[in-house]
Amino acid sequence: MSDGRSVEDLVVGVLGGTGPQGRGLAVRLAAAGQRVLLGSRDAARAGEVAEQVATRAAAAAAGVEVSVQGGSNVDVAGAADLVIVAVPFAGHADTLAELATPLAGKVVVDCVVPMAFDELGAHAVDVPEGSVAQQAAALLPDSHVVGAFHHLSAVLLEDLSRPTIDGDVMVVGDVREATDTVQALAGRLPGMRGVYAGRLRNARQVEALTVNLVSVNRRYKVHAGIRVTDV
Amino acid sequence: MSDGRSVEDLVVGVLGGTGPQGRGLAVRLAAAGQRVLLGSRDAARAGEVAEQVATRAAAAAAGVEVSVQGGSNVDVAGAADLVIVAVPFAGHADTLAELATPLAGKVVVDCVVPMAFDELGAHAVDVPEGSVAQQAAALLPDSHVVGAFHHLSAVLLEDLSRPTIDGDVMVVGDVREATDTVQALAGRLPGMRGVYAGRLRNARQVEALTVNLVSVNRRYKVHAGIRVTDV
Repeated sequence: MSDGRSVEDLVVGVLGGTGPQGRGLAVRLAAAGQRVLLGSRDAARAGEVAEQVATRAAAAAAGVEVSVQGGSNVDVAGAADLVIVAVPFAGHADTLAELATPLAGKVVVDCVVPMAFDELGAHAVDVPEGSVAQQAAALLPDSHVVGAFHHLSAVLLEDLSRPTIDGDVMVVGDVREATDTVQALAGRLPGMRGVYAGRLRNARQVEALTVNLVSVNRRYKVHAGIRVTDV
Repeated sequence: MSDGRSVEDLVVGVLGGTGPQGRGLAVRLAAAGQRVLLGSRDAARAGEVAEQVATRAAAAAAGVEVSVQGGSNVDVAGAADLVIVAVPFAGHADTLAELATPLAGKVVVDCVVPMAFDELGAHAVDVPEGSVAQQAAALLPDSHVVGAFHHLSAVLLEDLSRPTIDGDVMVVGDVREATDTVQALAGRLPGMRGVYAGRLRNARQVEALTVNLVSVNRRYKVHAGIRVTDV
């Protein structure tokens, strides 16, 4: 699936790359030297954001060769070696339903959180397939779907004045080579580790825990993340 | 609900105190100077385990007045100021259904995890009420139910040769005074903090994340816990 190449050599696509989470992941990965393709429904918009992301990553990462290009989600899905899905939950199923062919054979990393807000605050939303990651797996039968990058604050990701982020990336998935690749990718973000955290059927609570981090953020006025202790 | 008393003065009951999680919480709380009542369906068994727990806590905590007594779950529920529910998930509903009267007006801390195992490992079990903590709240309409203490390894809790445990206690609940009390109780365990993590309707993923920690433990041969970063 990654043809035995090391993770540094993979071109990473970010679908929904113009949203806060996608943009934050893109800029951190680009600053770490990863080649990034930033996707959006609107290819022109993706191109604009890609240029901004490239400029910011280059300013923060002296001596790193920064490469960020924009395109439509479908073009990015086809051109990237590994794809991160960072679209809004409301558009998750529709976006992926059209991408099964370009994403076939690839590692697809889903970081989408099934969350909604009402007068009591944030709450988790039920997903018929059990979790967003399992929904992706159902829509992309020929891809290797991994859940990861749920607990990273978009605010902290985008704030390159902080060179490192204090947090772990919980990685769930059923194919060892795919989860290993995603753990290695997470480890490219300064300060972070990828920690294997179970099979895809246990993605639901990893995704939904982000709702609790929103509550933590509100109560303590912070940008909370997670560390796994004793690892 | 705690009559304005400070948390140090509360008598803490542990239902299911003869199981690993209950015993581990009891010995740590006793070693921290908390008065503990250890409950079990079998009062005689509870008395035996209470004696062992008291001996171990006293040996580990020089200068601390250790107080652990055993009794039936119903007697402990009636006599304690605050009660931790640490029974097996399979017995959760039946145990609490009989205790609504003795637990009325009290803070009830549920640490039960809806987990089962099959040939693929651990997985979360659906609870009709949404979560174990919400099931407790439905069965105990006159108590203040809080979810907490899910992510603490029973092995580490019982290993008093480690004076501290590296981890946070995520605390969920709808009544501020109750969650504040439980956070303060968690803070009595050396090395740990109680961190408010949302309303009771978001207990499900906090409970179920324990399943992922089981996967972490298997993969890395550790006793994983959770830290909330930036708090």
